Amino acid sequence: MAALNERRLVALLDARFRSAAPGVQLGIGDDAAVLAAGSEPWVCSVDACVQGVHFDLRFLTLADVGYRSFQAAISDLAAMGATPVAALSALVLPKALSAADIDQLTAGQADASRETACPIVGGNLSRGAELSVTTTVLGRASRPIPRSGARPGEELWLVGELGMAAAGLSALRLGRPRQAAAGVASEPSAALARCILAWRRPRALLAEGRALLGRASAVIDVSDGLLADAPRLSEQSRVRVIIERDRLRATLTGALRGAARELGRSALRLALSGGEDYALLATGPRALRPPGARRIGYVARGSGAFLADGSGRRPLRGGYDHLRR
Amino acid sequence: MAALNERRLVALLDARFRSAAPGVQLGIGDDAAVLAAGSEPWVCSVDACVQGVHFDLRFLTLADVGYRSFQAAISDLAAMGATPVAALSALVLPKALSAADIDQLTAGQADASRETACPIVGGNLSRGAELSVTTTVLGRASRPIPRSGARPGEELWLVGELGMAAAGLSALRLGRPRQAAAGVASEPSAALARCILAWRRPRALLAEGRALLGRASAVIDVSDGLLADAPRLSEQSRVRVIIERDRLRATLTGALRGAARELGRSALRLALSGGEDYALLATGPRALRPPGARRIGYVARGSGAFLADGSGRRPLRGGYDHLRR
Repeated sequence: MAALNERRLVALLDARFRSAAPGVQLGIGDDAAVLAAGSEPWVCSVDACVQGVHFDLRFLTLADVGYRSFQAAISDLAAMGATPVAALSALVLPKALSAADIDQLTAGQADASRETACPIVGGNLSRGAELSVTTTVLGRASRPIPRSGARPGEELWLVGELGMAAAGLSALRLGRPRQAAAGVASEPSAALARCILAWRRPRALLAEGRALLGRASAVIDVSDGLLADAPRLSEQSRVRVIIERDRLRATLTGALRGAARELGRSALRLALSGGEDYALLATGPRALRPPGARRIGYVARGSGAFLADGSGRRPLRGGYDHLRR
Repeated sequence: MAALNERRLVALLDARFRSAAPGVQLGIGDDAAVLAAGSEPWVCSVDACVQGVHFDLRFLTLADVGYRSFQAAISDLAAMGATPVAALSALVLPKALSAADIDQLTAGQADASRETACPIVGGNLSRGAELSVTTTVLGRASRPIPRSGARPGEELWLVGELGMAAAGLSALRLGRPRQAAAGVASEPSAALARCILAWRRPRALLAEGRALLGRASAVIDVSDGLLADAPRLSEQSRVRVIIERDRLRATLTGALRGAARELGRSALRLALSGGEDYALLATGPRALRPPGARRIGYVARGSGAFLADGSGRRPLRGGYDHLRR
């Protein structure tokens, strides 16, 4: 068999598990599955955070790990326009973890659960060599928004901020961030501090996702970076997605620009390739664009996702593959 | 803080996550959570199987691992009397696993999914050092049966078989089972083969669980052994649970008796302490006992779970603690 990457494996699992069950409105491959239930379907998704793969305890407290694992999971509900109902938490706990450690971890989960009004109603506890937090989220939406509804002629919208989390992680990995006034600083600048917070404490855009109901034709949450997630939306909607460089650049925050300067990185590049921001990428007709959404491109006939600038179009490639590391 | 065991930690998490959310009919601590939804609530649960903790690839194929992890998870729906609707599968896949390995693992999951009529509609893929399979199951039941409804004066019922899985695992751990005719045999006897199959390919008692709706006052699935699960039912119902030794003994299968003899173990002991059978332990009034349920004791005022024989009562203690190993 050929080498495994996430795309191939998802296709394999889709084929393996596909079933024409009557109550299943949307199965494998979207942000979340949709189950028929009267006038308001249920939307469900699961997300795992594994130590050494998704997080590194040099840069995060256990409370951060609990908090962000919950927000990462519930971001899939945001991307469907769903309202959270409840969550389940499966913890794999290495022996080295003390009761105080677990107290911290679960305090972070509880904070995120409270902020998103999504109670944790059950779970599972297990020993294991590697700490992991697997969160199942359940929600409801009158008409959940899939990844597959984009139509040629529609606009491409960004809701939320891109690149901040990648800049924050980059600063942490560099150790002391390089500062303008060398030799003086030991605290990160305000810009870097904002980016570090964006990475440590991301927030799923639940209200913003609900605001897309009845307006957006397709939505995906940008968890793996625009380079990875824009092609997914393109593929699942069978359309071409064009990101206009100057429009995207106009959405970059002052904090990202400042942080990128300090880090010696390109802000645009961070916005394109950085993951873990949990912004929403959506499509819809111009007349229905909600106030919080900014136009960063458009949908055309064809396939693939491209970045367009004055001199032409370049295909978007790369992004995070969950099985490559 | 005191040493962590599962009981303490569940209490800690219950306190941490408890919330009076209006849609939550039953939260942490039962076989599954129950969420209000019109006339038929949703029932949900999550279960993790971790390599080296819950399974050992010397004794199981990857297809077995996939199959039994699914059945173990869905047994929690059986214990609520719920009908499965859908499942989510979160896989942590070590790099050493080939595409063929993953094919086997997911074939086992797909077999169990088909047999239980519970389609896998989504999931999550991640790298990690340890193989694990975390399964979320969603179902519905008109009136889900909790662990907490047992009343003094009711009967204690067993649905399914106890001890078989423990005998099977014990045989595998011993390597070649000891046989009556020493020196001849290399194949396990029919009795041991049945027990090994019971351990490798357990089946959640979904139809039997549904048959308890409107009849049983409380149900728990015996995943960790009667020694662990009978006290849980007693505690959550705030009653005393009495298991009558002779009645329990009368339920033991011929296969278990034969296997126990070959293994040099007590069949009754295997039935009391062995886990992973996924039998159902239920309580209810005598007049409502369904055909498939066998009376093995009764419910009284008081607390604790006891084994009664001609000479008196002994408290049940022990059983599997998910955080002890």
